[in-house]
Amino acid sequence: MALDEDRLEDWVELFDEDCDYRIVTRENVEQGLPNVLMWCDNKNMLRDRVESYRHVNLYNPHYDRHVIGPLRFFGEKNGVTSFEASCSLFQTELEGASRLFSVGRYRVEALVEDGAARLKSVTVIADTGLIPSLLATPI
Amino acid sequence: MALDEDRLEDWVELFDEDCDYRIVTRENVEQGLPNVLMWCDNKNMLRDRVESYRHVNLYNPHYDRHVIGPLRFFGEKNGVTSFEASCSLFQTELEGASRLFSVGRYRVEALVEDGAARLKSVTVIADTGLIPSLLATPI
Amino acid sequence: MALDEDRLEDWVELFDEDCDYRIVTRENVEQGLPNVLMWCDNKNMLRDRVESYRHVNLYNPHYDRHVIGPLRFFGEKNGVTSFEASCSLFQTELEGASRLFSVGRYRVEALVEDGAARLKSVTVIADTGLIPSLLATPI
Repeated sequence: MALDEDRLEDWVELFDEDCDYRIVTRENVEQGLPNVLMWCDNKNMLRDRVESYRHVNLYNPHYDRHVIGPLRFFGEKNGVTSFEASCSLFQTELEGASRLFSVGRYRVEALVEDGAARLKSVTVIADTGLIPSLLATPI
Repeated sequence: MALDEDRLEDWVELFDEDCDYRIVTRENVEQGLPNVLMWCDNKNMLRDRVESYRHVNLYNPHYDRHVIGPLRFFGEKNGVTSFEASCSLFQTELEGASRLFSVGRYRVEALVEDGAARLKSVTVIADTGLIPSLLATPI
Repeated sequence: MALDEDRLEDWVELFDEDCDYRIVTRENVEQGLPNVLMWCDNKNMLRDRVESYRHVNLYNPHYDRHVIGPLRFFGEKNGVTSFEASCSLFQTELEGASRLFSVGRYRVEALVEDGAARLKSVTVIADTGLIPSLLATPI
């Protein structure tokens, strides 16, 4: 929801300082290849990434819309809860036309403490073969 | 689900007599513009609207299919519960071809009494720049 | 999730021995026509079907991705729980392009015993007019 509303700074705040965010293609995962399309292995890297979007990058402005399926929980271990969810991501250009941008799956590990959750690890496994240069914003 | 099954009258019955239903574009919301694509500010207006679909309007028949993401609750105030959900809406023409029609977000206020919920306010904020003449049915 | 991960054998194991799986088009359901696009009326038929995919059929390899809306429960009767959910199904070709393949609705009856659920009946009612020859895998 934060990504869809272009609140990228709020999105970063969902993560733990010690975190891992990456986007990989399903093809690479299934073939055991190490390529990643985006990878930040701590919160400061996420902050830098968002900073660069705000101040440096030029890209086509658009609206994002994530429609996510039900969460599938794998249980809890050492205070860390794991779950997966299918995801469809639609983009709308400023002229108003919407299109399917990517489908895939989230694999998430979250630390739940005092009723609040902090993201430890988010891996986006994209079915869609995404072109890195089009990946202006996180998924 | 009622909209998808063309049970528009059942859909109206989900609302409170004192209700507000509107469809706006995200572009207008973000620019603070007052335009609305559809607006009914009480239940009788919804009834009229459905009546007119049934008896007056001519439009291309189609199937609607809403796929909605998880609800995100904002809490309860004076018996009114607020939540949001992302939404994708697909339309299928009678020849059988399906396409993405609209993506956006629902912002809902519901009155929960005796285990039943009545809709007080539903605002559809559409990312997709919808053409009013294509808006044959509610979203 | 099992279908999306090409774990068809695991998908079969979600069913009861005495089960019914079918795919029908919404058009046929609304017109009361008996046509079905796929029908297995016990678990051995599902096993055969999956076996034939694995060993006999030639079809374009692709990734499936189901994005399902919230479940809508109809209650429980004789230990069998009924629910429905809207569904969008996207396919991605090995070149990496994703497209909308089908939208529709699941109607499910499940037997819940000892905390585990076994599927008794799954009916896929597809809005999209699906061509049987394209139906390489279940929905």
